[in-house]
Amino acid sequence: MTRRPIITLLTDFGNRDGFIGVMKGVMLQIVPDAHLVDISHELSAYSIPQAAFLNQWAFSYFPPGAVHLCVVDPGVGTARRALALETQGHIFVAPDNGVLSPLLKGPEPYTLVSLTNPSFWLGSISNTFHGRDIFSPAAAHLAKGVPIAEMGEPVDNPVIIPYEPPRLEPDGIQCRIRYIDRFGNLSTDLDRPHFEQWAEEQKLTHDQVVVLFHGGTIRGISSTYGVNEPGELTAVFNGYDYLEIAVTVGNAAQRTGLGLNAGVQVRPVSS
Amino acid sequence: MTRRPIITLLTDFGNRDGFIGVMKGVMLQIVPDAHLVDISHELSAYSIPQAAFLNQWAFSYFPPGAVHLCVVDPGVGTARRALALETQGHIFVAPDNGVLSPLLKGPEPYTLVSLTNPSFWLGSISNTFHGRDIFSPAAAHLAKGVPIAEMGEPVDNPVIIPYEPPRLEPDGIQCRIRYIDRFGNLSTDLDRPHFEQWAEEQKLTHDQVVVLFHGGTIRGISSTYGVNEPGELTAVFNGYDYLEIAVTVGNAAQRTGLGLNAGVQVRPVSS
Amino acid sequence: MTRRPIITLLTDFGNRDGFIGVMKGVMLQIVPDAHLVDISHELSAYSIPQAAFLNQWAFSYFPPGAVHLCVVDPGVGTARRALALETQGHIFVAPDNGVLSPLLKGPEPYTLVSLTNPSFWLGSISNTFHGRDIFSPAAAHLAKGVPIAEMGEPVDNPVIIPYEPPRLEPDGIQCRIRYIDRFGNLSTDLDRPHFEQWAEEQKLTHDQVVVLFHGGTIRGISSTYGVNEPGELTAVFNGYDYLEIAVTVGNAAQRTGLGLNAGVQVRPVSS
Repeated sequence: MTRRPIITLLTDFGNRDGFIGVMKGVMLQIVPDAHLVDISHELSAYSIPQAAFLNQWAFSYFPPGAVHLCVVDPGVGTARRALALETQGHIFVAPDNGVLSPLLKGPEPYTLVSLTNPSFWLGSISNTFHGRDIFSPAAAHLAKGVPIAEMGEPVDNPVIIPYEPPRLEPDGIQCRIRYIDRFGNLSTDLDRPHFEQWAEEQKLTHDQVVVLFHGGTIRGISSTYGVNEPGELTAVFNGYDYLEIAVTVGNAAQRTGLGLNAGVQVRPVSS
Repeated sequence: MTRRPIITLLTDFGNRDGFIGVMKGVMLQIVPDAHLVDISHELSAYSIPQAAFLNQWAFSYFPPGAVHLCVVDPGVGTARRALALETQGHIFVAPDNGVLSPLLKGPEPYTLVSLTNPSFWLGSISNTFHGRDIFSPAAAHLAKGVPIAEMGEPVDNPVIIPYEPPRLEPDGIQCRIRYIDRFGNLSTDLDRPHFEQWAEEQKLTHDQVVVLFHGGTIRGISSTYGVNEPGELTAVFNGYDYLEIAVTVGNAAQRTGLGLNAGVQVRPVSS
Repeated sequence: MTRRPIITLLTDFGNRDGFIGVMKGVMLQIVPDAHLVDISHELSAYSIPQAAFLNQWAFSYFPPGAVHLCVVDPGVGTARRALALETQGHIFVAPDNGVLSPLLKGPEPYTLVSLTNPSFWLGSISNTFHGRDIFSPAAAHLAKGVPIAEMGEPVDNPVIIPYEPPRLEPDGIQCRIRYIDRFGNLSTDLDRPHFEQWAEEQKLTHDQVVVLFHGGTIRGISSTYGVNEPGELTAVFNGYDYLEIAVTVGNAAQRTGLGLNAGVQVRPVSS
């Protein structure tokens, strides 16, 4: 059994118009034996925060050495740079618009370059489809083993999206809705390890907290979806490992009217 | 040319939220050379009957030895078991909620176990995404050649969904709508071989029957879609090889208002 | 690194009902090491012009020798022929309904046959799913290296869709909307090379033309999407390399009300 190069693809191009197919064609010309794995192409158009959320979550499930292409690119053809990033044993290619922010703000060391070396571009470059003309060939050459330093000049001032992490205080936690999945589940940015540590310090079980948001309250955090009645509002740590507001066999976004960035609080039951 | 392990994936997780991508990442860590083939991820949420229908139909088009992951799992994280099934030269992994029923009710011998051996799980198990944490690694290890008996304890009481097969009597056939495809075509559970045998016994051609349902009648069973006028209601044996109510270049579900489990009769023209 | 056979798939079957999955199963039985690359399965049902547009564009990004399956097939099961085409170093399989027109009208030589040799069909042929029963096994055998001449009888009268190319006159260009993507961008059939030649002859820059259509006018052709304000109507050469009417971070089809075949004019600014 041979290990084959892996390239993952995350875009907002949709699966309808052939854009993803031709990107794969371009990559297979360069690295014919690659595994090409779709993460998503159905993100809301131009939603950099959604793409950043999924990218920083998904990559860690792939073997080290995988290359991750993440192209949500409202600035295609303008002066915005194209980037390659190596960190945590993985490689990423993406426009310089903040989509890589979560990987650049942490403590892990990284190498970041601009994709300025035309040797690793398609022969002809459009102004409107760099996913095909620049990002796909770069990803393929990187997957084939070209060192990231050959891709272009080092970059030390990438675009970073401002982000306020959850605040955990003795009397409660303040977090926000950061992702809404197709079931309408509302994912916050409160991850389970941080919650568990806070709950332990406050000597609280999952049943001794309330989750509050505009127009609603949920008593306790459930262990999973299926333990509540269909239609019931539920708080649960989801598959992304973040606190989520869900409706058992239902749609929480429609039910609550909450959208991205809406505030969510977690408090001791007695407060 | 080498034969590579094949794993098919059938879920209701959608293609938008990255769930399928990370399941593939998990599998490629275990079986790097696998073919990963999507059957569908756009099933109606929690629709076990739809998934059971597609799974029992699709697997037979793959080479023996293929592994088929089928995860529609409203009970994730509850006491419901996770299963691996070997039958008819194929292997299946799925929750114990009836989705494997069509494969367990027939005459074919099978081996059925519960996925209780944590050696074949992901290191950390969530309560909300067993598709990634249990079913994907199990499928990958099975595709790699681990014997099913090593996966866990034998199971002799799987969940079976009650099902009433079509009734074929001299004066007519009673069947039901079992699947509605994206074109709005209404697939019944009357398969062509059973119909042909009945028609032969009753000395009837395809033109000498009527198909009746609430609010409508179709005279004769057509050989294919394109032989009728656009907009015309048509009965035809479809790509699944079941009797289907269709509208030529149109949507039969919208036209007739019929839904899953609606009754359909086939009768001699003269009756 | 070994080069593996490549088969691309372009259909209107959707990704929901398992049709694509079983086609891939059929192909992998014949050519187990193939790369199977989806171009699109979400085309509007029965839209032969859309499929023809995408097919003639997408294939050229794949390595020579790739096989391209293009099945939009309202006439399945009727007398319409099934075709295999070899041209420009690539191979295509498709129904004889005009979907291959753009590849048959040009100056390039080609070999065209009807898929009449049952050795390369599935064992059992339905009347309603030739994508699985005829086109998939044919594509797989061709990808495996079977010469096209063995597939069946030569064809010299394929169905050709009438098509009026853009008219380029000194006082202006008349073209038409030929494709609408999921962002609602309106792609015409005026390609950049023809436009550039006309503009050079007329001594016009991209800023010295207006784009006119029913109910609207756009001054100048922009270099890319992101240079205009969100919501602004924009003319731009798109990723397909055709002139496109777009709305920056918006939906041009909804804004303009234009549909397929709507006329678009390009004129000197002063005229």
